[in-house]
Amino acid sequence: MQHENGQRLRDIALATDLYQMTMGASYHALEMNDLATFSLMVRKPPANRSFMVVAGIQEALDRLADLRFDDEVLEYLRSTGQIRADFIDALANFRFRGDVWAVPEGRIVFPDEPIIEVQAPIIQAQLAETLVINSLHYAMTVASKAARCRIAAGDASLLEFGLRRIAGIEAGLIAARSAYIAGFNATSNLLAGQQYDMPVAGTVAHSFVESRPSELDAFRVFRDTFPGPVTLLIDTYDTIRGAEHAIEVAREAEAMGTRVGAVRLDSGDIGELSVKVRRMLDDAGLTGVRIIASGGLDEYSINELVAAGAPIDSYGVGTQIGNSVDAPTLDMAYKLVEYAGQGRLKLSTGKISLVGPKQVWRATDRDGTPQRDVIATRDEPWPGNLWEPLLQPVMRSGRQMVHSSLLEARETFSRELKRMPAELRRIDRVAEYPVTRSNVLNRRQDAAVQQVRHRESGEALE
Amino acid sequence: MQHENGQRLRDIALATDLYQMTMGASYHALEMNDLATFSLMVRKPPANRSFMVVAGIQEALDRLADLRFDDEVLEYLRSTGQIRADFIDALANFRFRGDVWAVPEGRIVFPDEPIIEVQAPIIQAQLAETLVINSLHYAMTVASKAARCRIAAGDASLLEFGLRRIAGIEAGLIAARSAYIAGFNATSNLLAGQQYDMPVAGTVAHSFVESRPSELDAFRVFRDTFPGPVTLLIDTYDTIRGAEHAIEVAREAEAMGTRVGAVRLDSGDIGELSVKVRRMLDDAGLTGVRIIASGGLDEYSINELVAAGAPIDSYGVGTQIGNSVDAPTLDMAYKLVEYAGQGRLKLSTGKISLVGPKQVWRATDRDGTPQRDVIATRDEPWPGNLWEPLLQPVMRSGRQMVHSSLLEARETFSRELKRMPAELRRIDRVAEYPVTRSNVLNRRQDAAVQQVRHRESGEALE
Repeated sequence: MQHENGQRLRDIALATDLYQMTMGASYHALEMNDLATFSLMVRKPPANRSFMVVAGIQEALDRLADLRFDDEVLEYLRSTGQIRADFIDALANFRFRGDVWAVPEGRIVFPDEPIIEVQAPIIQAQLAETLVINSLHYAMTVASKAARCRIAAGDASLLEFGLRRIAGIEAGLIAARSAYIAGFNATSNLLAGQQYDMPVAGTVAHSFVESRPSELDAFRVFRDTFPGPVTLLIDTYDTIRGAEHAIEVAREAEAMGTRVGAVRLDSGDIGELSVKVRRMLDDAGLTGVRIIASGGLDEYSINELVAAGAPIDSYGVGTQIGNSVDAPTLDMAYKLVEYAGQGRLKLSTGKISLVGPKQVWRATDRDGTPQRDVIATRDEPWPGNLWEPLLQPVMRSGRQMVHSSLLEARETFSRELKRMPAELRRIDRVAEYPVTRSNVLNRRQDAAVQQVRHRESGEALE
Repeated sequence: MQHENGQRLRDIALATDLYQMTMGASYHALEMNDLATFSLMVRKPPANRSFMVVAGIQEALDRLADLRFDDEVLEYLRSTGQIRADFIDALANFRFRGDVWAVPEGRIVFPDEPIIEVQAPIIQAQLAETLVINSLHYAMTVASKAARCRIAAGDASLLEFGLRRIAGIEAGLIAARSAYIAGFNATSNLLAGQQYDMPVAGTVAHSFVESRPSELDAFRVFRDTFPGPVTLLIDTYDTIRGAEHAIEVAREAEAMGTRVGAVRLDSGDIGELSVKVRRMLDDAGLTGVRIIASGGLDEYSINELVAAGAPIDSYGVGTQIGNSVDAPTLDMAYKLVEYAGQGRLKLSTGKISLVGPKQVWRATDRDGTPQRDVIATRDEPWPGNLWEPLLQPVMRSGRQMVHSSLLEARETFSRELKRMPAELRRIDRVAEYPVTRSNVLNRRQDAAVQQVRHRESGEALE
């Protein structure tokens, strides 16, 4: 995307932590060119989540493919005075030529499971760190929240309205895309609509209603100036009176051969109001006019509304999804797990990662419902029928091999969610899905831990 | 910034909610060209915050100045089928020509206080909504969190390490800038360093230590390949042993006429370890080697460390600040408050905003300590000595009049924080600062509310 754009390339080149460059410079000075494998996973389970949804892979691959350093970038690097000049010179010819394995976007994953593994000469794999985590962290945070909204909303449609209270324009794009993967139906964000060819949806704001001499007038003129079935926002002054006005305007529309598509509720007791307004609409013969709800909604409030039988056709979710308020971060890390053929790990409290290249195998029952996952070494043989590998080779020598579209990711998630065990498909209780390690991985891990302990702490080898 | 960049202009043009365009189209069709005033404020106080720090104003002004619609954008708008063609045609000549008043970046504000007010023909002021909120919301969220880290850290230096777990590359820039305004000393983010001419700082990661045959070797070669005083990360395997290795390497360095600048602690009981490591360093005569702490830190953990007397010179704060985890959102809104000379407002539950253009006056005592703020109508006279206005005219007819630099914003905040009442300068307890309304504003507001109630609900005028 936007390959023609010099600024984007410079953004990608410099959107990294200084220490990636200083380490790269040291690896370079030390002529360390062996293959390194880095593994990205989420360590601690996020609050209130039974699973996470993979997103951001395509952006990570795009950034790796676009990673290069032009003169303006090199000049800035020199100006820091903290990066060796010989390395900066070498960066002029830098390209990412590594191999990448990744879990496809839209798939459901669990803590500890590798989501992306990068294998490349250590400088390349190291320089990828900040870019790759940054690509996945927010995208997965939003997708995992959106999935819960999808579960809560049942068959109702979900509209993503987050842009205004989101961390910038790019974040708005990422959020709209992630929400769409995880089952949202449309976004209000025109840039996302344009860039991702996603459906866009919009209603009308209070300011429009207030700008007119009266609510009734506002509804009338908005209807008459809007191409197609209009949505009317009915809570500006008094929702019930607003519904009466909407009904009046909808009846006039019918007489004119047009129609009001929906009314929107944005404040007050949405559940109670939706029942009243639905009844008023139905009594007026306007059974085709839908009800859209918005106003600080999240999966919890949607769940309550659905459970109470609120007759809402469509939920607009904004700030809560754009910021994943109840779990705004993932404990995501990108860790060196192998260098020069040897397993590498740290022993820092609570942060031990699994050494070497890996695969995740998912076992399903005969109906396709996942039963458990096993983290294995990458080269272990297929465990048998009813097991499928999650990690796929997606980039080889810096070339992306598999391109999957946004629609495919969305379908992947939809399929994935439907077949998940029922206890994972609820939002009011966190379910634990079994993830274990293969014996081969355990043995490799134990040997690596022993090795490091022996070397660094003088512990005896068993 | 990046005015040459066509993609940035398209991003700004389309980074909006569809309904801004559909409303704009209706205003256009209805020939509504009167002046509108929109006011941006935070309604509910954010959790755990006694105040908020203004940031994002410059970005909002840049975006308004850059708001235009090229053929690619217009073509996309047509393709949605939801925006009247006559309006899309008119957008080709669109420029924002409005007036903007804003509170300068770095100043401290409170709920209900207008932070930005936009006055323009209603189409222009309406189209500004999403762009302006989006510019301020995240910037202020991070700045307000960063301010708390600054309070907690006392005289220690603060490093912003958030980029990897932040909502994209642009969000990383915004966060680094906001943190710098609110008292951080440097960022690890090279792009922020380049774009904002901010100090950059970095250390070294565990991967470097792990990539070498031993920790001791890693420290040695990193020292020898790093230009300048090096920071050593000592918790990869065992922090105390790591400190021993660092001391050995630091002594060798002294013998060679170079030096180790700092050690970094990133896991375990940071407080206890910092005391032990400080003692070890001092006992070895390495009193000049500083201690940097990192690893999931926020203002609360920094506060505890400082209170316990932990000898830490520098705190690296990442994920917590980039996502403002304990208060990830602000209840920020941009509301129509006047159109065609008449106060406008909605009556929706809990969401009434103050009509008309406004000013905020801050009263200080003779030492300059703020005592209370009064929200007034914009044209009320200066209340007298010891009162200062917060809102400044910053844009007139679409031209920015006042340019303040990032450094000025940082100095503004530093000055502002120092003079704040002591109870606002603590992070463990939320203090309430008195914000009231002027009598003139109250009368204007009451009249507007009555007017609307009379019109929309048939209530009698008093």
